[in-house]
Amino acid sequence: MLELPEEVTIKEVGPRDGLQNESREVPTEDKISWINQLSEAGYSYIEFSSFVHPKWIPQLKDAKQVASSIERKPGITYAALVPNMKGLEAALETDVDEVSVFMSASESHNKKNINKSIEETYPVLREVVQEAKGAGKTVRGYLSTVFGCPYEGNIPIEQVIDVSKHMLDMGIDELSLGDTIGVANPKQVDKSLHEIQKQLPFKDIAMHFHNTRGMALANVLVSLNHGITTFDSSLGGLGGCPYAKGASGNLATEDLVHMLHQMEVSTGIDEQKLRQAASFIQDTLNKPLASHVMQIERSR
Amino acid sequence: MLELPEEVTIKEVGPRDGLQNESREVPTEDKISWINQLSEAGYSYIEFSSFVHPKWIPQLKDAKQVASSIERKPGITYAALVPNMKGLEAALETDVDEVSVFMSASESHNKKNINKSIEETYPVLREVVQEAKGAGKTVRGYLSTVFGCPYEGNIPIEQVIDVSKHMLDMGIDELSLGDTIGVANPKQVDKSLHEIQKQLPFKDIAMHFHNTRGMALANVLVSLNHGITTFDSSLGGLGGCPYAKGASGNLATEDLVHMLHQMEVSTGIDEQKLRQAASFIQDTLNKPLASHVMQIERSR
Repeated sequence: MLELPEEVTIKEVGPRDGLQNESREVPTEDKISWINQLSEAGYSYIEFSSFVHPKWIPQLKDAKQVASSIERKPGITYAALVPNMKGLEAALETDVDEVSVFMSASESHNKKNINKSIEETYPVLREVVQEAKGAGKTVRGYLSTVFGCPYEGNIPIEQVIDVSKHMLDMGIDELSLGDTIGVANPKQVDKSLHEIQKQLPFKDIAMHFHNTRGMALANVLVSLNHGITTFDSSLGGLGGCPYAKGASGNLATEDLVHMLHQMEVSTGIDEQKLRQAASFIQDTLNKPLASHVMQIERSR
Repeated sequence: MLELPEEVTIKEVGPRDGLQNESREVPTEDKISWINQLSEAGYSYIEFSSFVHPKWIPQLKDAKQVASSIERKPGITYAALVPNMKGLEAALETDVDEVSVFMSASESHNKKNINKSIEETYPVLREVVQEAKGAGKTVRGYLSTVFGCPYEGNIPIEQVIDVSKHMLDMGIDELSLGDTIGVANPKQVDKSLHEIQKQLPFKDIAMHFHNTRGMALANVLVSLNHGITTFDSSLGGLGGCPYAKGASGNLATEDLVHMLHQMEVSTGIDEQKLRQAASFIQDTLNKPLASHVMQIERSR
């Protein structure tokens, strides 16, 4: 029989991971309005933007304005991604609650993405983490290509665990393990978590699945059964580098929340308000969202 | 840890359950060509049509011609749905290997679909089953609304088991339990199979999931973990009353096969040939198939 937790924490990454992958730039005022709607929907965590050079991600060039304009609701952690010290400094000029850093479990993906080897990345991240912690912020780490790399294929779980340990040892408070290209299958997640459980503190681990091949909810289920209680997702399934128009990238928050609530696992999130917030961004982006919940919603 | 079987049998229902829900009628020669492609892809079971009055399902009015024109490959069971004695008689004029009958676990859905109460349906099905068995055919039973009914909501598992027992007692060889409206969640499937396992012979049970809310593969996973090894699916996710254009109805065979193969569960099916057959029907229907595999395929 399945073992399920009573409660799960969902970390919304749509305003950052979602919008950074959208070709259409969302006007700042619409972003602010959308994030305020998310705050009202019952989340405890929203990653609202990324302090990255606009040359790389022009869609998020208004991070500072967003940070200063959104309504902060008590009980919600408002987080932003920072790629380096420069990003951190910009983030610290705003009253961000948490910052997140990232690297890859795959040598070639890390090189392609950050232009450094894994070993070279550690000291850079360590400095950012120390500075952020010194400023009283908590830090989240994203580890990508945990279940497969576009260049190297499968990444040995020992390598994933080794990089994870390095990241947690820096003082990172929570580590999000990402299936960046959406290839993880439930058996692989099962075996990986079995190993991870032996070597890493499970309370500091979150899972970040993509639904590219339709297996995200099955992978969540396996993770829940292992005792994982924190999951990243993106409203509408935005972002996560979808292959094709209408195809799935990130796991859609509304599909995840729906499954959890149907299984009597609470999230604190109001499904109706979630659908309203999804409809808002759907209208703003002027494209049908790929989530199942929104497909049903559009047919009503 | 997950327990998975080494091998799974996939029963393809696309040519019947898929095409009967398509507004566009597929020309008979294209159906025949498509079914022949399916035969080459490695299935052991194909439900090729339904012997039902064309007034109800005009899309399948060519069942007889299809039956006599497809190439029969050794080792494949070619089955057809029969709603009543008249349908059975028509089916028996062809060399169908197996016939399937259907009813609902929900009183109101059964009434709406068959215009009879559950009690009134039993003798009608029993006659069809006896006649079919007398003619040397095996018989499959579809039980619908097992995990929820559009009129009654949740159906008590004891009622599902009671109707199932009646169907198996008639001599039905295999019973396919259907999540007709795509509402089953993994916890519900887990609890239901736990009860079913106590009272019904598992070897005679197949599961038939719809992906309406994205939970089909998670439900398959739970079923596999319980020891179920037979699943229905429809190539491209065709049929199963999808709510909206592009929305998911039936679980797509190619997504199911992909997950199973990734988990090292064998199906005997060739994924490349499957994609080719899916592309063929996609072109014939002139609409993008909703499966994840085909979304990726279209973006290549």
